[in-house]
Amino acid sequence: MGYSTLSWQIDDRVLTLTLNRPDQLNAFTTTMAEELIDAYHRASADDAVAAVVVTGAGRAFCAGMDLSVGGNVFGLDEGLNPSLEQLNTLWDDPAIVQGVRDTGGRVSLAVYDCKKPVIAAINGAAVGIGATMTLPMDVRLASDKARIGFVFGRIGIVPEACSTWFLPRIVGQQQALDWIYSADILTPEQALAGRLVKAVVPADQLLAEAHALAHKYIDGRSPVSVALMRQMLLRNAALPHPRDAHAIESLAMLHTSRNDGKEGVAAFNDKRAPAFTGRASDGLGDFYPWW
Amino acid sequence: MGYSTLSWQIDDRVLTLTLNRPDQLNAFTTTMAEELIDAYHRASADDAVAAVVVTGAGRAFCAGMDLSVGGNVFGLDEGLNPSLEQLNTLWDDPAIVQGVRDTGGRVSLAVYDCKKPVIAAINGAAVGIGATMTLPMDVRLASDKARIGFVFGRIGIVPEACSTWFLPRIVGQQQALDWIYSADILTPEQALAGRLVKAVVPADQLLAEAHALAHKYIDGRSPVSVALMRQMLLRNAALPHPRDAHAIESLAMLHTSRNDGKEGVAAFNDKRAPAFTGRASDGLGDFYPWW
Amino acid sequence: MGYSTLSWQIDDRVLTLTLNRPDQLNAFTTTMAEELIDAYHRASADDAVAAVVVTGAGRAFCAGMDLSVGGNVFGLDEGLNPSLEQLNTLWDDPAIVQGVRDTGGRVSLAVYDCKKPVIAAINGAAVGIGATMTLPMDVRLASDKARIGFVFGRIGIVPEACSTWFLPRIVGQQQALDWIYSADILTPEQALAGRLVKAVVPADQLLAEAHALAHKYIDGRSPVSVALMRQMLLRNAALPHPRDAHAIESLAMLHTSRNDGKEGVAAFNDKRAPAFTGRASDGLGDFYPWW
Repeated sequence: MGYSTLSWQIDDRVLTLTLNRPDQLNAFTTTMAEELIDAYHRASADDAVAAVVVTGAGRAFCAGMDLSVGGNVFGLDEGLNPSLEQLNTLWDDPAIVQGVRDTGGRVSLAVYDCKKPVIAAINGAAVGIGATMTLPMDVRLASDKARIGFVFGRIGIVPEACSTWFLPRIVGQQQALDWIYSADILTPEQALAGRLVKAVVPADQLLAEAHALAHKYIDGRSPVSVALMRQMLLRNAALPHPRDAHAIESLAMLHTSRNDGKEGVAAFNDKRAPAFTGRASDGLGDFYPWW
Repeated sequence: MGYSTLSWQIDDRVLTLTLNRPDQLNAFTTTMAEELIDAYHRASADDAVAAVVVTGAGRAFCAGMDLSVGGNVFGLDEGLNPSLEQLNTLWDDPAIVQGVRDTGGRVSLAVYDCKKPVIAAINGAAVGIGATMTLPMDVRLASDKARIGFVFGRIGIVPEACSTWFLPRIVGQQQALDWIYSADILTPEQALAGRLVKAVVPADQLLAEAHALAHKYIDGRSPVSVALMRQMLLRNAALPHPRDAHAIESLAMLHTSRNDGKEGVAAFNDKRAPAFTGRASDGLGDFYPWW
Repeated sequence: MGYSTLSWQIDDRVLTLTLNRPDQLNAFTTTMAEELIDAYHRASADDAVAAVVVTGAGRAFCAGMDLSVGGNVFGLDEGLNPSLEQLNTLWDDPAIVQGVRDTGGRVSLAVYDCKKPVIAAINGAAVGIGATMTLPMDVRLASDKARIGFVFGRIGIVPEACSTWFLPRIVGQQQALDWIYSADILTPEQALAGRLVKAVVPADQLLAEAHALAHKYIDGRSPVSVALMRQMLLRNAALPHPRDAHAIESLAMLHTSRNDGKEGVAAFNDKRAPAFTGRASDGLGDFYPWW
């Protein structure tokens, strides 16, 4: 794919996206942000990809923003100072996108929009943006060597990458506040106890476990069903009333029950494996995207 | 009540609503959906009912949509294809209600609107709509024979019954995504560890435990207080700001403090049991419903 | 500070706010409510305060509303009966503020708006408003003598102090409903298992632990960073879309990266402790408050 900070490898419909600056502990840069955004959009559009596993090369997952570059480390424009209203109005203006909008948040929104399940395989240090970039992913697996830190407070900045939206939804309000204030480096066991990660696995089995989980999510499944389930679960719970979810579920059920769901019911009744034909790239129905 | 798929039994102010198609493992049909909606509305309006326990006859709770009927199993109209905007505009149009809106979701909204606590007593297999129909209920008890599965992905469709709104609110975002993707059949212990059910109890004690819990919730209570507490807890946490909850709590406190709350305070000061007289049918105050 | 129901003591930048009516088990009164609101606003504005610990004098934390005063115990006006729309329109009208709006909720909104971390040190009975007043605080520590009860149902009223908004966000929907219905008096172990409190500590170590936690949150930190992190975590997760959090995070990162964040990065690269100079009173940036 011509990425300089990532490697892209598809194996049996699972894309492994590896943060690949091992000598810098995969520290995050604006180039890595742009490449991640591109990679998630490609993964979303590519029917050869059914799920995504994200991990780090070498001993770290991602050691955070590369602070060693000095100067304007966050890549933000020193001259712009928009109000919230101006920011929302100029949302897609290139100067605002590049100079004001948090780069980690732009990556998180690309994960959020992805049509494929995304699994974090946290193989080592995941600090700052290395921790928050995993929050919009569906499920996090930690190796026994993982260390996770929301360390923004230590350098006088604030959490980003949409983490103030995701973290309380994953671990609850009290745990989120405590971790963000304390800026502790969490062990895998602490992350598991706080329900941040689904499981802790031995380091040498992490990628195999992540791939096995991906296959559990996608094998024998309709990519249309998987993509709609992902978007519905991430988006609907934030709506003000279950009626709002009911409307979207109704249209998604109407669509799937006329397409891959017909085959699914027939296969169930015939006691055979279903042969789904729908594609996430063009099969999500007229109502998609509904937002 | 003349239901063909349910039994309705009131015992000491607790209504037991039993899914009653044991030879079909209580599989869900559109008739059952209409009867459940009717039953929840009756329970809500009937002052002889103070709480509701929902369980299944025979060895299953509800084995899901009855797929054996073949053809249009979801009961949806093959010719309608509204946009989200049209669906919202024609919300109560009979053709839309019957032919487009997810039947499980219509049942869930009836549970959501109910003025009485609703307890799921999951006695056996609860699969598909059998699992999701319990999510708008307040509390779930599982027997040691319960098996719970969000299996929609296996047949190429999507979760329904407002489950994409409720499930993440009950078990958190990561657990909800994992269970929906995996479509695993959960043991009672897994459901308990994931905080889907409040407790696991021996099968032969399940109904007694559910009734005891219902009495703990309603004995010595004002039905007005119970109804308002239920609606406030389900609805207010989804509002954008605690100020929104403050407004509703203020009106509910104003109302109850002038009515059953007066008796409650007097009884507390007199060290005697209160004798509440308020009724859920007509005593919830001028501000109810506030939405 | 001239409070009659509270004591205010600052020690090494941590304000200890003690509910101070020990002979009445620190029972809540309208005077205490007004004094708490005043105290939180002062703590928020005072740069000498970096964190707040709230506890009770004597053996109770707060035994709830003082019901012994009889008559109009909730301090609400008997003659006013506004609709929800009127309440929202007349929100700051003195007659509405004093006679209609729940006093506990007014206290909770003052906690919510506070720019400093707030830690509850629950030293004994915390019942009714004594329990709900801790919910908008960031973290709760319980002594092994704590007893926590959401007992509103017992006296025929409803939960207040914005608890219908906060409690499900802290402990999840099922646990919140169960505790509110049952009106049980929870042991510290039950509160911990249900994730209401962060930890249970021996009674004689409670205040020391609360102060140590406060220092963990504030020592070596920028008060600007801490204040923004608090408001972002409490508010952003309730917004409908992560994009909404992204907008606010972007402006907060822009602001902090130009101010204390510059020193934080420099100190990190120099391997020295940072010397932050920002103040919560006037340093939160032009975009604050963003709501």
